[in-house]
Amino acid sequence: MGIMEAERKTTGWAARDPSGTLSPYTYTLRETGPEDVNIRIICCGICHTDLHQTKNDLGMSNYPMVPGHEVVGEVVEVGSDVSKFTVGDIVGVGCLVGCCGGCSPCERDLEQYCPKKIWSYNDVYIDGQPTQGGFAKATVVHQKFVVKIPEGMAVEQAAPLLCAGVTVYSPLSHFGLKQPGLRGGILGLGGVGHMGVKIAKAMGHHVTVISSSNKKREEALQDLGADDYVIGSDQAKMSELADSLDYVIDTVPVHHALEPYLSLLKLDGKLILMGVINNPLQFLTPLLMLGEKVITGSFIGSMKETEEMLEFCKEKGLSSIIEVVKMDYVNTAFERLEKNDVRYRFVVDVEGSNFDA
Amino acid sequence: MGIMEAERKTTGWAARDPSGTLSPYTYTLRETGPEDVNIRIICCGICHTDLHQTKNDLGMSNYPMVPGHEVVGEVVEVGSDVSKFTVGDIVGVGCLVGCCGGCSPCERDLEQYCPKKIWSYNDVYIDGQPTQGGFAKATVVHQKFVVKIPEGMAVEQAAPLLCAGVTVYSPLSHFGLKQPGLRGGILGLGGVGHMGVKIAKAMGHHVTVISSSNKKREEALQDLGADDYVIGSDQAKMSELADSLDYVIDTVPVHHALEPYLSLLKLDGKLILMGVINNPLQFLTPLLMLGEKVITGSFIGSMKETEEMLEFCKEKGLSSIIEVVKMDYVNTAFERLEKNDVRYRFVVDVEGSNFDA
Repeated sequence: MGIMEAERKTTGWAARDPSGTLSPYTYTLRETGPEDVNIRIICCGICHTDLHQTKNDLGMSNYPMVPGHEVVGEVVEVGSDVSKFTVGDIVGVGCLVGCCGGCSPCERDLEQYCPKKIWSYNDVYIDGQPTQGGFAKATVVHQKFVVKIPEGMAVEQAAPLLCAGVTVYSPLSHFGLKQPGLRGGILGLGGVGHMGVKIAKAMGHHVTVISSSNKKREEALQDLGADDYVIGSDQAKMSELADSLDYVIDTVPVHHALEPYLSLLKLDGKLILMGVINNPLQFLTPLLMLGEKVITGSFIGSMKETEEMLEFCKEKGLSSIIEVVKMDYVNTAFERLEKNDVRYRFVVDVEGSNFDA
Repeated sequence: MGIMEAERKTTGWAARDPSGTLSPYTYTLRETGPEDVNIRIICCGICHTDLHQTKNDLGMSNYPMVPGHEVVGEVVEVGSDVSKFTVGDIVGVGCLVGCCGGCSPCERDLEQYCPKKIWSYNDVYIDGQPTQGGFAKATVVHQKFVVKIPEGMAVEQAAPLLCAGVTVYSPLSHFGLKQPGLRGGILGLGGVGHMGVKIAKAMGHHVTVISSSNKKREEALQDLGADDYVIGSDQAKMSELADSLDYVIDTVPVHHALEPYLSLLKLDGKLILMGVINNPLQFLTPLLMLGEKVITGSFIGSMKETEEMLEFCKEKGLSSIIEVVKMDYVNTAFERLEKNDVRYRFVVDVEGSNFDA
């Protein structure tokens, strides 16, 4: 039987308009249904998408909007049909909180490609109410979209894995690139690129960071553990690296030429695009044909992949480089993120924050 | 020990200049070395590439040039180290007659991607002599590049398999698309497209031909056995087919939009390009990302794949639709091929032809 209770209120920090400025906002949390998990939020990562959504860059923002989709918290209540979780569990929620369950992607446990998927925030749940994200004291989520955080993993470390982590883990796993000994390239060293280096290294790959400048050379090689660093415009070095990589994860979110990176790929190599880019990208067919090279793309990851990835990161002792901030710093953090002034992910300490600022 | 003998002469039909007109030409056949197979040619298919090569469309033609890379013949002599073949065997030779043997593609038995591969004609062999193709009485080829034609397969039927056949078989096999029950699209119904329908049907696929007009509807459905036929500009029918195909083999050799065909692909579907196109093709990243769709390309096939494909075609009783002509018809056949006036492959009856015309 479902738990029926009075409406509950919670407080988050919401954007009210395309200025994107966040401020405290109190709203109704839905009842904990039979399959729902009620979560007291401990911390939440800040993703670049949060910036786009709060500022209506994609033209589909609804306000008030509480962003945040790298959510870690503690289970405080479970619905009658919830078997996976019990009160006190430390759990995570990522980008999605719903899917249709019946389409071909859903049947394949790849619900991130379900055409009726429901986003963690800036979307409408099946009850008709807006979904709200992780910069809040609490959230109620269907158990299918909740994952256990492995025991012993720090909550702040877990948060960025729930979006950035699974975003790189998913295609490496899906395209058969998880085995050790491969040589990979990471193009662009932002939140996802940084996680790409970490996860690829944990898989036992030789990792080359491809960047537009020397600015991040030292941190890539020393702090992140990359094996090599090349500037994309350095033709001599790029020629040396021709036909040497099994894959390139391309995190560049703006229009760019693909030829230089296709040339780096071995026979059968894969260029995996992660940036939603509004202008068409181009390629010449012989560059693909002469080596069965692949251009593909990938988008976040499934719940199953999220679980696998968390276990993988725990087993490998993977940690990301984060900057933990309080809720009342979030607007400054967004400003800094916009200027790419963060190494490499902000995580908001939600439980330690004042919500009445 | 190698068989040493006097230089031998043979006669073929060669193009002498970019007019592409073929006429009889007598040249030296190399000695049958320890690993060589001396082949009396029985028949040879005409491929669209022969047209490009004889007319210097790619700007790298050398004359005199005897084209032809779908060669079937009888072994008349073998070198001392040849164990795979004996005199009297019916054998085939495709696009390649040499490779380095040491590079990464060669090590993976994918010698079609060896940077030092040697073409059956319009290339230079390791002895410094020009290679000459199958529109000739005889050829001498290293055993690595010779395949046995399965017993019971008609020689004229075998010829087009050696290029067009393996060109479609190779990517379907390589990309894990050989199992029954898949749904495939064949874009363009020329020599390769026709073979695509035949081979995909033999694999047990549901095959949709995608064409620019209704001209070939009847022959696609009735003669070739395709299951469905759609005109690419028929938006209603294309929308119906959205997200339904596991792959599209794209044989279009000129610039074209990819979006309509990417839209036909299911989650994880593959667009396999076969046309060398000089202008860049375009795509939007979300079309790939939202479904891990793949754009790739493929180029002929390996010797191993050629052997597999021949066995597969024999087992499935696959036959292609060909028009058998004599050598002295070859110039007319080339003209007709240029106008796309052939259903679907010319095969020259070399042994039954007059070489002194």
